[in-house]
Amino acid sequence: MLDKKAKPNFRIFALNSNRLLAEKIAGSLGMELGKATVSRFSDGETRIDIDESIRGAHVYLIQSTSTPVDVHVMETLIMIDALKRASAQTVNVVIPYYGYARQDRKALPREPITAKLVANLLETAGAARVIALDLHAVQIQGFFDIPVDHLLGGSLLADYFIERKIVGEEIVVVATNHSAVSRARKMAEYLITPIAIIDKRWIEADDSNIVNIIGDVAGKTCILIDDLIDTAETITSAAQELVENGATDVYAAATHAVFSGPSIKCLEESPIKKIIVTDSIYLPEEKQFDKVVQVTVSELLADAIKRVYENKSVSPLFEKKYEGRME
Amino acid sequence: MLDKKAKPNFRIFALNSNRLLAEKIAGSLGMELGKATVSRFSDGETRIDIDESIRGAHVYLIQSTSTPVDVHVMETLIMIDALKRASAQTVNVVIPYYGYARQDRKALPREPITAKLVANLLETAGAARVIALDLHAVQIQGFFDIPVDHLLGGSLLADYFIERKIVGEEIVVVATNHSAVSRARKMAEYLITPIAIIDKRWIEADDSNIVNIIGDVAGKTCILIDDLIDTAETITSAAQELVENGATDVYAAATHAVFSGPSIKCLEESPIKKIIVTDSIYLPEEKQFDKVVQVTVSELLADAIKRVYENKSVSPLFEKKYEGRME
Amino acid sequence: MLDKKAKPNFRIFALNSNRLLAEKIAGSLGMELGKATVSRFSDGETRIDIDESIRGAHVYLIQSTSTPVDVHVMETLIMIDALKRASAQTVNVVIPYYGYARQDRKALPREPITAKLVANLLETAGAARVIALDLHAVQIQGFFDIPVDHLLGGSLLADYFIERKIVGEEIVVVATNHSAVSRARKMAEYLITPIAIIDKRWIEADDSNIVNIIGDVAGKTCILIDDLIDTAETITSAAQELVENGATDVYAAATHAVFSGPSIKCLEESPIKKIIVTDSIYLPEEKQFDKVVQVTVSELLADAIKRVYENKSVSPLFEKKYEGRME
Amino acid sequence: MLDKKAKPNFRIFALNSNRLLAEKIAGSLGMELGKATVSRFSDGETRIDIDESIRGAHVYLIQSTSTPVDVHVMETLIMIDALKRASAQTVNVVIPYYGYARQDRKALPREPITAKLVANLLETAGAARVIALDLHAVQIQGFFDIPVDHLLGGSLLADYFIERKIVGEEIVVVATNHSAVSRARKMAEYLITPIAIIDKRWIEADDSNIVNIIGDVAGKTCILIDDLIDTAETITSAAQELVENGATDVYAAATHAVFSGPSIKCLEESPIKKIIVTDSIYLPEEKQFDKVVQVTVSELLADAIKRVYENKSVSPLFEKKYEGRME
Amino acid sequence: MLDKKAKPNFRIFALNSNRLLAEKIAGSLGMELGKATVSRFSDGETRIDIDESIRGAHVYLIQSTSTPVDVHVMETLIMIDALKRASAQTVNVVIPYYGYARQDRKALPREPITAKLVANLLETAGAARVIALDLHAVQIQGFFDIPVDHLLGGSLLADYFIERKIVGEEIVVVATNHSAVSRARKMAEYLITPIAIIDKRWIEADDSNIVNIIGDVAGKTCILIDDLIDTAETITSAAQELVENGATDVYAAATHAVFSGPSIKCLEESPIKKIIVTDSIYLPEEKQFDKVVQVTVSELLADAIKRVYENKSVSPLFEKKYEGRME
Amino acid sequence: MLDKKAKPNFRIFALNSNRLLAEKIAGSLGMELGKATVSRFSDGETRIDIDESIRGAHVYLIQSTSTPVDVHVMETLIMIDALKRASAQTVNVVIPYYGYARQDRKALPREPITAKLVANLLETAGAARVIALDLHAVQIQGFFDIPVDHLLGGSLLADYFIERKIVGEEIVVVATNHSAVSRARKMAEYLITPIAIIDKRWIEADDSNIVNIIGDVAGKTCILIDDLIDTAETITSAAQELVENGATDVYAAATHAVFSGPSIKCLEESPIKKIIVTDSIYLPEEKQFDKVVQVTVSELLADAIKRVYENKSVSPLFEKKYEGRME
Repeated sequence: MLDKKAKPNFRIFALNSNRLLAEKIAGSLGMELGKATVSRFSDGETRIDIDESIRGAHVYLIQSTSTPVDVHVMETLIMIDALKRASAQTVNVVIPYYGYARQDRKALPREPITAKLVANLLETAGAARVIALDLHAVQIQGFFDIPVDHLLGGSLLADYFIERKIVGEEIVVVATNHSAVSRARKMAEYLITPIAIIDKRWIEADDSNIVNIIGDVAGKTCILIDDLIDTAETITSAAQELVENGATDVYAAATHAVFSGPSIKCLEESPIKKIIVTDSIYLPEEKQFDKVVQVTVSELLADAIKRVYENKSVSPLFEKKYEGRME
Repeated sequence: MLDKKAKPNFRIFALNSNRLLAEKIAGSLGMELGKATVSRFSDGETRIDIDESIRGAHVYLIQSTSTPVDVHVMETLIMIDALKRASAQTVNVVIPYYGYARQDRKALPREPITAKLVANLLETAGAARVIALDLHAVQIQGFFDIPVDHLLGGSLLADYFIERKIVGEEIVVVATNHSAVSRARKMAEYLITPIAIIDKRWIEADDSNIVNIIGDVAGKTCILIDDLIDTAETITSAAQELVENGATDVYAAATHAVFSGPSIKCLEESPIKKIIVTDSIYLPEEKQFDKVVQVTVSELLADAIKRVYENKSVSPLFEKKYEGRME
Repeated sequence: MLDKKAKPNFRIFALNSNRLLAEKIAGSLGMELGKATVSRFSDGETRIDIDESIRGAHVYLIQSTSTPVDVHVMETLIMIDALKRASAQTVNVVIPYYGYARQDRKALPREPITAKLVANLLETAGAARVIALDLHAVQIQGFFDIPVDHLLGGSLLADYFIERKIVGEEIVVVATNHSAVSRARKMAEYLITPIAIIDKRWIEADDSNIVNIIGDVAGKTCILIDDLIDTAETITSAAQELVENGATDVYAAATHAVFSGPSIKCLEESPIKKIIVTDSIYLPEEKQFDKVVQVTVSELLADAIKRVYENKSVSPLFEKKYEGRME
Repeated sequence: MLDKKAKPNFRIFALNSNRLLAEKIAGSLGMELGKATVSRFSDGETRIDIDESIRGAHVYLIQSTSTPVDVHVMETLIMIDALKRASAQTVNVVIPYYGYARQDRKALPREPITAKLVANLLETAGAARVIALDLHAVQIQGFFDIPVDHLLGGSLLADYFIERKIVGEEIVVVATNHSAVSRARKMAEYLITPIAIIDKRWIEADDSNIVNIIGDVAGKTCILIDDLIDTAETITSAAQELVENGATDVYAAATHAVFSGPSIKCLEESPIKKIIVTDSIYLPEEKQFDKVVQVTVSELLADAIKRVYENKSVSPLFEKKYEGRME
Repeated sequence: MLDKKAKPNFRIFALNSNRLLAEKIAGSLGMELGKATVSRFSDGETRIDIDESIRGAHVYLIQSTSTPVDVHVMETLIMIDALKRASAQTVNVVIPYYGYARQDRKALPREPITAKLVANLLETAGAARVIALDLHAVQIQGFFDIPVDHLLGGSLLADYFIERKIVGEEIVVVATNHSAVSRARKMAEYLITPIAIIDKRWIEADDSNIVNIIGDVAGKTCILIDDLIDTAETITSAAQELVENGATDVYAAATHAVFSGPSIKCLEESPIKKIIVTDSIYLPEEKQFDKVVQVTVSELLADAIKRVYENKSVSPLFEKKYEGRME
Repeated sequence: MLDKKAKPNFRIFALNSNRLLAEKIAGSLGMELGKATVSRFSDGETRIDIDESIRGAHVYLIQSTSTPVDVHVMETLIMIDALKRASAQTVNVVIPYYGYARQDRKALPREPITAKLVANLLETAGAARVIALDLHAVQIQGFFDIPVDHLLGGSLLADYFIERKIVGEEIVVVATNHSAVSRARKMAEYLITPIAIIDKRWIEADDSNIVNIIGDVAGKTCILIDDLIDTAETITSAAQELVENGATDVYAAATHAVFSGPSIKCLEESPIKKIIVTDSIYLPEEKQFDKVVQVTVSELLADAIKRVYENKSVSPLFEKKYEGRME
């Protein structure tokens, strides 16, 4: 809860992508969300109505730029413009899920680097600070010239397994691909387990992939780790491979539940027992199924907002509860 | 047609909003549209594939930021980012319909000025020039620090009436509201007619509008003028009022056919005989009905692109054919 | 009056264009103008002397950029530079009359958009906020990326007529030209009157203007409305036209009394009975004649400055007294 | 003369401050000045009319920001805005006399640094390059982030004395004050003479200045050197002092003839025999008197423009004729 | 070799860090390095002398920002400033080794992101384009808003092994740590081998590291892969571990030979047989020892410069020779 | 000493160049230096560790950019980046000696203006204010767009002579070269003495310098004045010249003791009796020799920091103690 005296010029607003999470965050802080609505004009243009004065206020604006990504990005930019022109002292954008994060480099000729473009757009619109969670690549912090507080959700996911004693040498944390290895290593440290890696290799002659598992999984409980689950293709084929190689149980854990296209069906039919995700992205009812366990990041984000607003050091306080979660 | 020798470093690309118009423009210039596709990743993120090198090229990018506006704006920004990082020499954005143009001022407290925000975003992404058509307010030119070529479509609409001899003192050009008066005056000069104004006035006590018609319309053919038709509410109630005040025939003319919500039905049921619009916005089949006449702006835009690229003065050449259409 | 405790880091300074108004504003706030002089070096260069420390202060700088416009603009820019380098925390520019506002678009080929240029110059020099009054076009707000508080002086002009009971159906508010129609409509709502429009139309064949009056004026008291009176040519020929069409009395009302060239003589000789203007522009004695009534905007501006400084919402408080005057 | 083939996209324009010089420069290049007029609207606002297309052109804009300085600075900024919006490829500003150059530092608390402000304003308006002559302080080059070609007029002034054999050990070049010493040293090198310095020293107790001459002047012909002559107070009192100390003849030489206030009378009544200046500032007839000799900088500027446009090295070619004049 | 006709406004300059490589690049292009020297003033300030005019030229500036990093970065910035002020048309910076690349995120509280800072500094100084090689993280491309051509040196390193037939299933490519896995996977594709990973894990209780090898290495020839070798601690302890786990031979390959501190001694004493690196960083004689094999990147960089200058597509041409080396 | 209540969000940090001075400054303010270390990674990259939270703090960062200049400049930029990303409210850079100050103009073709470049880099990194001491040219203030507080050390040097009664008409203050004349004039006012100038003149025919002394020095005690002593060549040859012209005693005084190359030996062997400098640059033991007298600027800087932080006027308070030292 925030100190009452500090409140007068502190406000929290939420846009459309994840009001449920925003309300939880506000609740944790003992506050109410600022009165504002984001709607559409008849022709689809985004309409912002801010129904209270925010002159001189430090505004924290909560928005995941999840699907529909372009609409959610534009909502954010327009809201920042409105807040800035309405004389907010600073506009601080809290982005639990940063869309376009995977467009963080030119992997093919003439590709955009949309993750950088979005960072530039946010700064142009007038953002003064970003609070983000588990960015696809940590280098995205450097796409911004404004301060970025980068929170880590790994230990929240780890708690699920720790509470159920799914820890120790008989468990293997498995990176779903080469770029998830560091993330898997970190989870393995929470759970004191070895790691393994799904090594997909493209054979040009056959125009097909050979999948190897590097590390021992036979007879073990495996926890597949990634930062997000999108189409679920990678993670479900990895799970299948693990089972074929003798894994007894397979779990999956990822911060961001993008769950696009046929992902729900894939996951339901897969050998994965439970999929642990956070509420960084709003999951509508049709995407909530038995296997999915949602861990909330609301307290982590609320604490971060509180400390940022109070100019208190973020790192020391988080040591016990969220060790390693905030850089 | 463009001089063949000039072509090597000149390219035209189109995004998704109005490929039909883009193809007509390219055709007028004797060129083909650059090879590029704009699609969606599984999670809805915009994906750009530019399938030919554009290093060192002056690229003209055609995109109306019509519905879905936010998606079309983001497409444009991402494409500009891709072109710029792929070493295009300049990126020139041709915007037949500029969405959010009506958000050009703070009309209510804490409103955004989205038309300016979009101008800033285009410049941040890397646009070097804008070619626009009949902006809602001419002041939007000043929202940009890059050169803007502002084309006027009024005479193209006027041609419809001139060809049908719907001209002279027995015709009245009617402004649909106070802010359309200058536009009506201009059309009246093409058609050598008097003008009238629909004067809507809000009565606080009754919480209702009183509509007056200032000027003579009884026994006359009226041409209602506006820059765009969105919900069609304004223009159809104006038409009704004109008929009730003795107008014999009612036409409507507007550059941009936004046609949102129930507009098609409203227009069909209204006393308006014909609605003359341009193809600045793509009209899908379900929005094309008997009363609608579409005039193409493709040649106007093609000529403008050609002259801009060739560094020829735009104004003199346009005198005969499009007098007053380009500033 | 401003809360005494708030004063330490709040200062008001005035430049040369309208010290009388600036002193009234300071008086309303219970403050004195900051000690500073703007003079000329021998060769005409502008010299600024700020005779008190303003380190860390929020400075409000009052200057109308009226004639001589270029000098007044440069004075403003140089003063902002001096204040910023002297460590003012913020420099807030109060511009009762914004010169060059009519250069807000390219009306002819190769015209500058000086109103935008001036906005850019103010931001480059270091302005953090603008408080303006009755901008020629509301879109000029969007020329700035810093917050603009746009005040409306219409109701102050309306008070003159309300106090004298020049209201109701027997009065007509007349727009002096097409672009003044919205402004006339707003005044008509204050005075609960109908409106009419002076419709000037250029006849190419004759190289002359035909002037029509759209709406009924015969036998009525007319109030001509515009945002400013410059050469007075438009408004005096309009008055003449009204009289010729049977108007009984003609008043004129405009926020900004530019009164250039032969305007005083024109107005004196015209059939206009009274000309109601504000003191946004300083009127030297030779421009003050019997017909001119000056309404002060000092309290409106003082209230706006006070609210901006105190981070209080501007809109609610103004409801009763200045309804609709501040957006 | 400029190579004819190079001309198509090369243009020279002049504003109001010194058209005579601009015409000479254009003449030297075998060109005509671009068609444009700078006038005033009725209310004094600056009006720019550019009467030919300059799309894609490299424009060289000649303007001394001499008295009235603010007006000439604003003219320049507005013209740059117009040229840039009219699609000039680059706008290169040729500033024979850079007004406000003496405001190049904070000499007193809370002073502006107007010379830097003007540099920022020129860049904001859209200037791509500056060509300047004998800036008051060479550091002003560093106020710009765009390239500055800094020309030196010293040898043109020296020619006057060389042609008349006013050279050698019997002549003394005298710095009018401490900051002119380097300039005097340079002139002394052209004329192979010793130097002396007028050393003014303020005595607090007496509240008066004591003037010493450091160096030998008795029985010698003295040439007083400064970069500009403004009120002429410094230079005429220096001349008086020299005569009182036994100087036989006194000349004065300075690049910029500001000649403000009572300077003409002062100079006429002074013991100075001849005052050698350039035409960097336009001298109206009333400021041209017998003692004044004007040396033209038109060829120097024309050569510089030509070389800049042709991307030829500026320094080597100038060696013989203008040795040391261009850095 | 570059087309002779293209040369007039194309120049290559080198600074101090790696003139040997720069000369090879120039040689490949049939050009000579521009005449310029970078030296120190007596007090250690960097002094730049550019001994030929570069007005209007497209300059390519070659500099690895290797040790001493700060000095090499500052040399680059100062040279860019000099080139820009000397009217170079564009300054293109070729950075074979990008120092500070590992400071690409905040790994600890209050760390700088120096890799981004350097990108900002290069843009501020005036760089128009960057050509880089094997950046530590591909996301660094997005730290720039100017175009970045990112070249890959992997296949040049692979050639060493291919030529010696050190390929196929009996070879294992080993990632030295978790973040090198993607790089190892790519090399494994060139050499058609499996991969393994050195998995270092910190045990809090013991305050020590446990090192596991994930994947099979017993009886195999191992190629350790990383992007750079700095202290060589990681790679030599990895090599030791491999030998202890039964590896028969151990090679190491990395693009950038930083070779700091005791690295040379470590490498010499290690079980590594050969260390394959490129000449992206200049290796002084004392760092060249028997085990080191240097592969040159000069042709790759020369080709890239040539194609960028000629606006030819970079990707297609490189297919055969450097497949996958340029994005 | 700083008011205790003001301290919470006020911090002083020092980098590596002059910790002794920084500690004295902190001591004067009753504070301790912030906990931070600047070290090198193994490969020479600069490493910053800030060991306490500075969120929301106004940080004053003390660093002379003395030899090794490039390293000290980069340290400063990297530290600013770290502070800004760690959410410091403002970063204020205190630069007792500003390296590269002599690179303040293009003296030769194609020279950089490094003093301006460094100003731009500091602003890009995120500096909000600069406090500097005796800049080589006062115009360097104008290289910044952020506020610069420019302190003057002259009276601190003067105190040395005043305390020893080395004042009055029998003393001569001598400018070591033409650009030091203004500085000499100022010192002469403190000590109430006449001035003289060392006038070096290059004779092309002989390719040698002739040195004249302008002013009387025979039989007098001379005080040579400059802003800095670098190689000491200028000042020692000046001293020699003075002695040869009959000076009885020679002192030297300069703010910045750069003391590069063989300067120590030169000075020891020169006829100069005492060299008065400040501690703006750290003097290692081997550079401290008998003739050198170091005057501390720590109190001057501490007072300046205090006043800037407290938003008190800097000029009035300094009147008695440091008259004229701060502008």
